[in-house]
Amino acid sequence: MLIYDAVSPAPRCLRMFLLEKQLQLSAVTVDVMAGENRESAYLGINPAGQTPALRLDDGSTLAEAVAIAEYLEELHPRPSLIGSSPAERAQTRQWWRRVELNVTEFIHNAFHYAEGLARFTSRIPVLPEAADGLKQVAQDRLRWLDAMFGEGPYLCGTRFSAADIWLYVWLDFGLSVNQPFARDLPHIGPWFDRVAARPSAEASRRLLAL
Amino acid sequence: MLIYDAVSPAPRCLRMFLLEKQLQLSAVTVDVMAGENRESAYLGINPAGQTPALRLDDGSTLAEAVAIAEYLEELHPRPSLIGSSPAERAQTRQWWRRVELNVTEFIHNAFHYAEGLARFTSRIPVLPEAADGLKQVAQDRLRWLDAMFGEGPYLCGTRFSAADIWLYVWLDFGLSVNQPFARDLPHIGPWFDRVAARPSAEASRRLLAL
Repeated sequence: MLIYDAVSPAPRCLRMFLLEKQLQLSAVTVDVMAGENRESAYLGINPAGQTPALRLDDGSTLAEAVAIAEYLEELHPRPSLIGSSPAERAQTRQWWRRVELNVTEFIHNAFHYAEGLARFTSRIPVLPEAADGLKQVAQDRLRWLDAMFGEGPYLCGTRFSAADIWLYVWLDFGLSVNQPFARDLPHIGPWFDRVAARPSAEASRRLLAL
Repeated sequence: MLIYDAVSPAPRCLRMFLLEKQLQLSAVTVDVMAGENRESAYLGINPAGQTPALRLDDGSTLAEAVAIAEYLEELHPRPSLIGSSPAERAQTRQWWRRVELNVTEFIHNAFHYAEGLARFTSRIPVLPEAADGLKQVAQDRLRWLDAMFGEGPYLCGTRFSAADIWLYVWLDFGLSVNQPFARDLPHIGPWFDRVAARPSAEASRRLLAL
C-alpha cells in the first residue's frame, strides 16, 4: 500500500491516525501548493484531485481520509481509534460526524473562500461572500460541541478516538489561517491542550515521506 | 431499539436504508416543523437536537444518520448496503463522503439559509448571503461527481449502497426546495430515475410510525 500525502489538514489527520496506530506505510508527497493534485498524473490516481489517497495492492485507489482510516482500522484493529465493538464504533462515528459536519468542514470551506482564495479560485467554485459567515458558524458550532462534551477527557469519554484527531488537526490548522478558536471554552480548551501534548500531534506535522 | 423519526431528509435516508435492509424497528415521530427537536424533552434524548436518533436497549442514544446506518449494518449485515468486506465498505464510504461533503451538505446548508430560513433562524446560525452560492456549489460538484461516475449502474458499480440512498434522498429533497439538479447529467440523470424506481424510494416518504 502507498499513501499519497500532502501539506494539508486532511492528510495530517491521516498521519496522526497512522502514528497513533503505530502503522508505517510507504508514502509519496503530492505538491498540492503547486497544484500537482489537479494534474493528469494524479487525477489518474484519484479523479477527485484530493489528498490523501491510498493506493491498494491491487492497483486501485481509495480516497477520502475517513474512508482510508476506517479501512486501515479494519485491517489493523489494535490499537483501536474507531472502536472495538459496534457500540464503540457507533459512538466514535457519531462524534466524528458532529465534528466534521458542524465545525471542521466549515473551517475547511471558509479557508477555501478566504485565506486560500487565490490558490483555490481556479480549482473549485469559491464563495468569498460566504467566508466570514462560515468562519462564524464554525466557532458557534464549536461552542455547541463544547456544551455537549461529556465528562471527558475525550469526545468519546475515556477513549481517545479518530474524532479527537480530526477536531484537533482542524482547530490547529484554524490557528494558522485566521480562524482561531476560543481558548476559554470550558471543555474544548483543556481538551485541545491534552491532545496537543500527545507525541502524535507534533510528529504529524512532518510528511510521511521525509 | 427505538428510532426517532421526522419529516426531514436525514431521517428519510435512514428510512430508505431500513426498507432496503428489510429491518423493522419501533419508531416515534418528532415534530421538527414545530421545533419539538429543540425542546428539553428531546434534547434529553439527543442533546444535538437533530433527527434521526436511535434509542439503544441500554437507554443510551445514538445520533447521526450515517453512524446509525453503520451500526445497524454491523448488527444486521445482510443485505449489505455498506459492504461485505473491508474493500467494499471502503469503496462505499469513499463515495458516501464525496456525496455528502461536496453535494448534499451544501444542499442542506443552503436550504437552512434560504427556503428554510424562517424556521432555522432561531435555531442555528444562518447565512442568507451564502445561500445562492452554496446552491451553485452543490450543482457544480454534482457535475464533478457525474464526471467521476464509473460504469454504474450505481456509485459503487454494480452494488447499490448507502451512498446511492443519501444522494438520491437529498437530490429529491432539492427538487422540492428550489434546488433542482440538471436532469441531463449523463450519469446522474439516468441513475436518479433508476434509484427512484426502487420501491424503497417511494415507501421512504412515509414516516415509520404511521
